[in-house]
Amino acid sequence: MGDNTQYKYLTKLDYPADLRQLKVKELPAVCDELRRDIIEELAMNPGHLASSLGVVELTVALHYVFNTPYDRIVWDVGHQAYGHKILTGRRDRFCTNRKLNGLKPFPHPDESEYDTFCCGHASNSVSAALGMAVAARLNKEDRKVVAVIGDGAMSGGLAFEGINNTATTPNDMLIVLNDNDMSIDHSVGGMRKYLLQLTTNSTYNRIRYRLSRKLFNWGILTEKRRKGLIRFTNSLKSVLTRQKNIFEGMDIRYFGPAEGNDVVELVRILQAIKEMKGPKLLHIHTTKGYGYAPAEEDATIWHAPGKFDPDTGERIVNHDGKPRPPKFQDVFGTTLLELAQQNPKIVGITPAMPTGCSMNIMMNAMPDRVFDVGIAEGHAVTFSGGLAKDGMMPFCNIYSSFMQRAYDNIIHDAATMRLNMVLCLDRAGLVGEDGSTHHGAFDLAFLRPIPNLTIASPLNEPELRRLMYTAQLPNKGTFVIRYPRGCGNTVDWRCELEEIPVGKGRKLKDGKGIAVLSLGPLGVEAEKAISITELKWLNAHAAQPLHIAHYDMRFLKPLDEDILHEVGQNFQQVVTVEDGVIAGGLGSAVLEFFSDHGYQVPVHRIGLPDHFVMHGTVAQLRHQCGTDAEGIAEVLDKLTNELK
Amino acid sequence: MGDNTQYKYLTKLDYPADLRQLKVKELPAVCDELRRDIIEELAMNPGHLASSLGVVELTVALHYVFNTPYDRIVWDVGHQAYGHKILTGRRDRFCTNRKLNGLKPFPHPDESEYDTFCCGHASNSVSAALGMAVAARLNKEDRKVVAVIGDGAMSGGLAFEGINNTATTPNDMLIVLNDNDMSIDHSVGGMRKYLLQLTTNSTYNRIRYRLSRKLFNWGILTEKRRKGLIRFTNSLKSVLTRQKNIFEGMDIRYFGPAEGNDVVELVRILQAIKEMKGPKLLHIHTTKGYGYAPAEEDATIWHAPGKFDPDTGERIVNHDGKPRPPKFQDVFGTTLLELAQQNPKIVGITPAMPTGCSMNIMMNAMPDRVFDVGIAEGHAVTFSGGLAKDGMMPFCNIYSSFMQRAYDNIIHDAATMRLNMVLCLDRAGLVGEDGSTHHGAFDLAFLRPIPNLTIASPLNEPELRRLMYTAQLPNKGTFVIRYPRGCGNTVDWRCELEEIPVGKGRKLKDGKGIAVLSLGPLGVEAEKAISITELKWLNAHAAQPLHIAHYDMRFLKPLDEDILHEVGQNFQQVVTVEDGVIAGGLGSAVLEFFSDHGYQVPVHRIGLPDHFVMHGTVAQLRHQCGTDAEGIAEVLDKLTNELK
Repeated sequence: MGDNTQYKYLTKLDYPADLRQLKVKELPAVCDELRRDIIEELAMNPGHLASSLGVVELTVALHYVFNTPYDRIVWDVGHQAYGHKILTGRRDRFCTNRKLNGLKPFPHPDESEYDTFCCGHASNSVSAALGMAVAARLNKEDRKVVAVIGDGAMSGGLAFEGINNTATTPNDMLIVLNDNDMSIDHSVGGMRKYLLQLTTNSTYNRIRYRLSRKLFNWGILTEKRRKGLIRFTNSLKSVLTRQKNIFEGMDIRYFGPAEGNDVVELVRILQAIKEMKGPKLLHIHTTKGYGYAPAEEDATIWHAPGKFDPDTGERIVNHDGKPRPPKFQDVFGTTLLELAQQNPKIVGITPAMPTGCSMNIMMNAMPDRVFDVGIAEGHAVTFSGGLAKDGMMPFCNIYSSFMQRAYDNIIHDAATMRLNMVLCLDRAGLVGEDGSTHHGAFDLAFLRPIPNLTIASPLNEPELRRLMYTAQLPNKGTFVIRYPRGCGNTVDWRCELEEIPVGKGRKLKDGKGIAVLSLGPLGVEAEKAISITELKWLNAHAAQPLHIAHYDMRFLKPLDEDILHEVGQNFQQVVTVEDGVIAGGLGSAVLEFFSDHGYQVPVHRIGLPDHFVMHGTVAQLRHQCGTDAEGIAEVLDKLTNELK
Repeated sequence: MGDNTQYKYLTKLDYPADLRQLKVKELPAVCDELRRDIIEELAMNPGHLASSLGVVELTVALHYVFNTPYDRIVWDVGHQAYGHKILTGRRDRFCTNRKLNGLKPFPHPDESEYDTFCCGHASNSVSAALGMAVAARLNKEDRKVVAVIGDGAMSGGLAFEGINNTATTPNDMLIVLNDNDMSIDHSVGGMRKYLLQLTTNSTYNRIRYRLSRKLFNWGILTEKRRKGLIRFTNSLKSVLTRQKNIFEGMDIRYFGPAEGNDVVELVRILQAIKEMKGPKLLHIHTTKGYGYAPAEEDATIWHAPGKFDPDTGERIVNHDGKPRPPKFQDVFGTTLLELAQQNPKIVGITPAMPTGCSMNIMMNAMPDRVFDVGIAEGHAVTFSGGLAKDGMMPFCNIYSSFMQRAYDNIIHDAATMRLNMVLCLDRAGLVGEDGSTHHGAFDLAFLRPIPNLTIASPLNEPELRRLMYTAQLPNKGTFVIRYPRGCGNTVDWRCELEEIPVGKGRKLKDGKGIAVLSLGPLGVEAEKAISITELKWLNAHAAQPLHIAHYDMRFLKPLDEDILHEVGQNFQQVVTVEDGVIAGGLGSAVLEFFSDHGYQVPVHRIGLPDHFVMHGTVAQLRHQCGTDAEGIAEVLDKLTNELK
């Protein structure tokens, strides 16, 4: 919450109903204050800046024109909804945004009746809003429903499916297409080109603008005349551009493009089309980061800039000069380029995340061999399948939670054919502040049942490099490597590239009685937990030292059966540790193996619980879930007490 | 294989290379023979008729013009590929199509080098073909790549993602859009309307056709002139129709619409555009069932007609007059209507399967409350989410293997919000002849890790009715009901609708020593297996009768913990039976529970193996997997020998 004394309006606007008491001409000042509030808040409490700034005017205009919460606004991707939160009763709590027990990172109906749908993953707004619009019609409610979708999200197949059905299902929905030529990096694909074309027909735009502004200014518009005007401009456009656009072709009335950072203009247009029957699409143009010069200049960096000085735009980076472990994503990015330099068949595929997964390192060096396919996870995998089928070696990198969108593609377009390709799941496990929709919680459990897959997770950075090297060797089939968000633990990570035998884990530490089997970087927490437990034991029973064994499984599939036989035969207690839901993951695989081979050793499964984990720092959430060193040590401690 | 003496060409055409020796004017006769062969074969050996007949000319033209298998033809949905199989070395084996150990139901690279990609699920062709086209470019191969996609598959988001990327990725791919205004029922959505509009602009079509035919007939076309002509007709079209279509707007060159059942015309067009650089789309019009009057008249029935008399078109139905158990899908359809008549909030949603899942029963009675959204599984679930969010009670029915395409939608657009909606998974478990891509093998394993879901499977038809009734009662959250393809076991299935307590299974039979826990209709096989085993035992040990207990779990989630405690405490051996992969399903859930509660009773998991199960009758496949009565009895028999 910024300094209140600087605000004339914002402090009095608790809810949209308050906003609707104002005159239209006061709205630009409201927008200025809202923008200032977002900037000041985000300067201290990092979050998604640029997209929220771009839609300040749209947010104000929508809540001004529509009777929220009775009317429904469905945001597509909640990054942009900070203004929406501040205007809907959450200004005083906005400083808790994305923090443990604070406001959720994305709108969610559990938090506010103004939040109509879960919007963590892109491209779902039109489908969800269509459901609401149809419900309103069936319930005979005069409710307006608005979906707000960005051009980036438009490349997602789900958005197309939604629009395709909007065209032929009776409804009065309004789709606002917020066109800023960006998703997180830049939006890609033919649709972008197509929209750009719609946008840039200057003759048409010039005439249309002049005409409509004049008519509005003269105040001669009645509802009837408005409709006439829109018909007129539509046909004018047809004549001038000699084209009927895809939306019109689908019988969705098309309006625009309009200047989306002009709140007065937006209010006028929205009021004009609000009561119209049938589906309609308003195409607006906004500038990502609008009104904050540093963010306007580089919207990719300012997508989620971290802390910064709101006055100078200087980003605040804590750096004590000590060498640090790299981010896993950078190890991926660097190693990918290294491998690609040796293996000419390697290509990179990313759905709109070249920066997020650091594939931009290879993209800069080898632009012809990296494909950013836009927000289109299913296509990313199937396209990789086609490349693999004809002899290329694709590395397709998709965040774990977004890989949920390519599940059938993995099964049908890769695994059934045992295609040689690598699926890298970045952001696997708990991701922290992005919360419940973004945790990579399910991948281990949903991938393990798929035949023919190899599924691996590295303990640390050198292991990630070795797994990547191994995966691109000939005839390794469909090879999944999952690793977490953020930094690893190894400062000196540039190891030699060498093959890891598929399905082989390794013993990190000998022991007796208790064996810990871990998968992935949580193994480091397990190591700490073992030290803690052994030390505690030593303090209590100095004579009889405790040695807990530790195995890094490396592979969820195929399992290292040698290790499991060894453990099943020689230990009294087994603890499994994984950064994923425990229903169906590593722990279950170990239980299945022990059951199938008649081992009766008890297995204690540590992992994520059977509920959606909320947001907070990774450390906080691990602590909640008992997957940090402390939580693991607690389990170990209890087991040591049971040891004979 | 039809009677060979009737064929002049077909018997000599083993491979496309043979076809390419013929003159163009001979091709219509080849098409006639190919069509006759398909009809005669399918009359005896049921399969997908109508779509294969529609593309006979296209199939012949493609293999004639393109240098297969070096050039790549990627079919979208393999239903239509029977002609392709016959022409690519598989005519003599075509009588084994869809049979155990016979030809696969859909093209698959494991079977033939002419099968470029797995094509069981719709809408993947463009993405896969783009991968191949890009691979050709990177490998500097002068390979042509053609994707053949139907208008039905075009409603799938994956197809849109593919086309969107085709527009901006350098490639020379040809997309053939085979427009027959059908998927299995009729295709729906705005894109269909849009395509229709492109098709029916008669002035343009008339002029274009006359012009191009004349120029072709005069033989004055060189490659250069061809390009000129296409540019000319494109701009002519622009002028005449005053529209630039979506494909052209995306910079994909658009040709068409052309008559797709005229093989000579198709060959000419394909030859004309084959060498052109850049992505291009050829829009053709075909008639589903073309050349076989009964199939042309009702393509939905003739999609997969079963056996029939090829001369009269009379479909052969075995019927001995005895009352039979209904299909599960019909119990679903009938019950849905019954519930909808009582509960005005109920709506039905199906992605292009109203007939396949019998939602057409409700659709006919209540057209306003049923939504066929086309091939768009993701949208189907998210749209249902929107409906649920605003108070409707959606029953969204999607085949289990196609639900793999809505995985993220279930998590993100339903479970995170605990929305009250019902997901019905028809075709769960082994489906028989449609084979590896269509078995509903994974749903139990991939749904179980998702928080907030209720997951149920009925033992039989009355239980399906009760579960459906239960699911639509207030505040049941997101409720999954999975049931198999085909008929159940209960002739007298119209039971009263009554509530089943969520998470409660039931004891079907008392016993001692061994307990069988089954989920779903395989419980009937388990019942038989128990009888077989007990009888066998009785014959050997008349004095000491054996009683094996049997529990119908009903719910995979939440598990019936009372039953599991009872079983864990009182039995020496537990057998779990489920119609799904054993990695992560019911058996694993039972292992997890026993492990968490310290029960050491051995669990024997019966279910599907960790490889893709091929095709055959359901009975044959169950036998292979050991999930039929015999297979279960074998396990039980072994266990009885171990009993003390």
